[in-house]
This record gives sequence, structure tokens and C-alpha cells, in this order.
Amino acid sequence: MDVLLKKNERIDDLQYKGLKIIQKDDGFCFGLDAVLVSNFADVRKNDCVIDLGTGTGIISILIAGKTEAKSITGIEIQEDMAEMANRSIKLNNLQDRVKIICGDLRKSPEIFGISKFDVVVTNPPYMNVGGGLLNPNEKKAISRHEILCTLEDIMKVSEKILKPMGRFVMVHRPDRLVDIIWFMRKYSIEPKYMRFVYPSANKKANLILIKGTKQARPQLKMMEPLYVYNEKGQFTDEINKIYGRE
Amino acid sequence: MDVLLKKNERIDDLQYKGLKIIQKDDGFCFGLDAVLVSNFADVRKNDCVIDLGTGTGIISILIAGKTEAKSITGIEIQEDMAEMANRSIKLNNLQDRVKIICGDLRKSPEIFGISKFDVVVTNPPYMNVGGGLLNPNEKKAISRHEILCTLEDIMKVSEKILKPMGRFVMVHRPDRLVDIIWFMRKYSIEPKYMRFVYPSANKKANLILIKGTKQARPQLKMMEPLYVYNEKGQFTDEINKIYGRE
Repeated sequence: MDVLLKKNERIDDLQYKGLKIIQKDDGFCFGLDAVLVSNFADVRKNDCVIDLGTGTGIISILIAGKTEAKSITGIEIQEDMAEMANRSIKLNNLQDRVKIICGDLRKSPEIFGISKFDVVVTNPPYMNVGGGLLNPNEKKAISRHEILCTLEDIMKVSEKILKPMGRFVMVHRPDRLVDIIWFMRKYSIEPKYMRFVYPSANKKANLILIKGTKQARPQLKMMEPLYVYNEKGQFTDEINKIYGRE
Repeated sequence: MDVLLKKNERIDDLQYKGLKIIQKDDGFCFGLDAVLVSNFADVRKNDCVIDLGTGTGIISILIAGKTEAKSITGIEIQEDMAEMANRSIKLNNLQDRVKIICGDLRKSPEIFGISKFDVVVTNPPYMNVGGGLLNPNEKKAISRHEILCTLEDIMKVSEKILKPMGRFVMVHRPDRLVDIIWFMRKYSIEPKYMRFVYPSANKKANLILIKGTKQARPQLKMMEPLYVYNEKGQFTDEINKIYGRE
């Protein structure tokens, strides 16, 4: 199938089951966080999954490649990003299971309906407006700062579109942990599993992986720390395994 | 000064600045958590400190020994524990700065008044009732389970007795993190510093140290992990330092 690249775009090989992705040279490119959250999501056979704010489509593509999900829907507000993500889906021949919708994720309940998904997965903008310099590149700013949607928007929408006992999976920054927990519980998505990601054993955690269940009873499982690099500065065995380089 | 030991009591040397403590052979004895929270509390010169649920008085004694706090008040509901803690205070000749009060910590605002303390420090019962077998020994059960006070009670009372911008310092279990954050924010004590304590680098965290400030703006600092044992099974340098064995 012919998939044309536009100006300033490139195809990156995900080095995982032959998957590929189109990214912009000057846009937000996926990072370790997207890979980790896709792995942490633990999607089951026949799950209907939604990826809120899919961007390049990276999480939707990885979950399609890794799991037996029935359907994966990515929603993205930036028209050119959604269009590019759609070309990546076709490039990987995943169009039967993955749909990319251009729209405002805050309208997801109206677009998709109530109680429709088994799993919400998201790698939302990390910084609240006022919490860090805005990137002058508008696309990067939208991906990093809560300009078009806040953490509270994400939780409010997820409560509506998830089925009862549906799972919510997110990667975020540890310095937003209080807001994360506050808004999850406020919108009846009880945090059940939490894992901190450390660059290495003696550094501060710089990512948090969190999984909640709609309407579940309170009971948090704090998981082992995930270290990215070992003392020799190499990826740890676990990171290699997540990247499929066992 | 004569301090008599009662039946089934012993004097333990804290191996820190000559401090000692009286403990019961069959009662709840202090552990690493009390030592860590005393160190984490970061009490400043002339602070008025309250130790909610002081038990043997261990935290009050350590803070008196480590800091230049103006006054330290320990409140304890179990009459015999409060009386024993008082004897430990006298044994250490700390009675000018440390007072142990026998009373229900839930009545602290009535006992001490509103906006009275610079710092609340506490090592409360970790388990909610229903979350773990009750210890048939009533004293141990009261120290471990939320029989006589819940996490919500602690936060409700702390909000009242702390001065504006007063600090709240607690050690607790990571599996209660969601409740901890929920109730801190609910009672206007914003979590500001958080540190997970790991038995060693590849185990799950088993304690959490948390510090909040009354009426502060949201901004969490996630601190480096604190490891108790190194790969050789010995205390890490940081733990030795906390124990004063530099």
C-alpha cells in the first residue's frame, strides 16, 4: 500500500514486530513513556481500548502489535497529527483493528457513548499551565502542557466512557501525583497499581505508571521500582524485555 | 532521678546521644519507622511540635534529642503507655521541653486549642480495620489498626491544631497512599515532599515518608528513594547516618 510522506516527516522503525511509525522532524516524537504505558496497560483478548490524545498514534500501534485487543480507538485533536497517525496505521496494515479519530477528547462521551470501553490508556500532557515554560512550537506545547485538556478533563471523560470495572492506565510525572490521585478518586476510578520509574537506582523517579479501576474498592498495590539504566549506564534487563530485545 | 521499672518493662539504649527508652516486653516496640519519621520531620529551632499517638514516646524523645524544638507534646490514649512514656521523659531529663498528655488525640483541638503547633508528627496505626488480622494483644492492635483513630481523624485534627503554613509529617504504608493523599488534600494539608523507603533496591517500597503544609499551594517534590539495606545486606550509609553511626 502506498503511503506518502509529507515534508519534514520520516518513518521510524519501532524495532518491534516490524512496526513502523511516521513522525515529524519538528513535532513531538514518542519517548520511553509511551512504550512503558503500552506495556503496563496489560490489555486482554477482545478488549475495546481507547487511547486519549493519541498524537502520532504510537500507543495505539504498540497495543495493536502487542495484544489481542478487539479494537483500538485513538482520538487526537490536532488535525495534521490525526491524519499522520492514520497513515501510520495504514503503513502497519492495522486499519481493521485501529481507528484514529480527529476530535476533542473532552467530547468522547458524545462521540463514542457512555460505558463503551474496557480500557482507557493515555499519555497526557504532563505540565499544568504555569508549571514550566511553554514551548514556542505550538504542537510541542499542546503535547506537553495542559492547554487543550487538563488531568481533570481526562478523568471526567474516562469515568463516562469506561464500562463498570473498566481499567484506566496512564503514564505521568511523579510531581503530579497528588492531582492524579485526587482526580482519579474524585471521578470514581480507584488507583489499584502504581509503579515508579527511576532513571537509575539512586536518582529521583521521573515517571509514574498508574492503573485504576472504575468503581473498584480501595486497595493500592505499590509495585517494584522500574529502573531504566543499570550502574554501567546500560538499559536494564527489564527495559530490554519491554523493548522486545530479550 | 529515680525511675522505677514496672513488671515486664525494660530500658533500651537508643544509642544516640545517650537517650534511653522504657518499653514493655509484650507491648508494641518502636521500629525503623519511628526513627525515620523523627529524622524526616526536619524540626526547626523554637518549633512547637505535637506527636499524635506517641505510644512509648519514642518520636518525642528523638526529636527532643535531635533538634532545638521549643516544646514537644506527645498525646497518647492508653493510660499505662502515657505513664510509661512520661517515665522515659524523666529518665532522659527532658521534662522541661517534652510533655506527655494522656488523652484522645481526636480531642486535641479542644485540649490544646486551634492553630497552636508549627509541626504535627505522627506514626499512626497503618491498617484500616478489616485490612489485616487484628492482634489478640489489645495494645498491639491499637498501635497497628485504626481502632481508636483513623487516618481521616488524624488529618481532621491536624488541620485544626496546626498554625497556617504549619507542617505535617507522617510515616505510613505505601498501600495507603491513595487515602493519605485524599485526606491530606481534603483537610487542606497539601502534600509537598514524599519519599519511599525500600528494604533494598529491587524490593517493593514498604514505608512512605510524607510531609505536607497547611494551606500551601500544590507542588509535590518526589525525593530520592531511601534504601535500608545495600546489596551486601548491610545498612546503607544513609541509614547509618540517620542512626547517628557515621
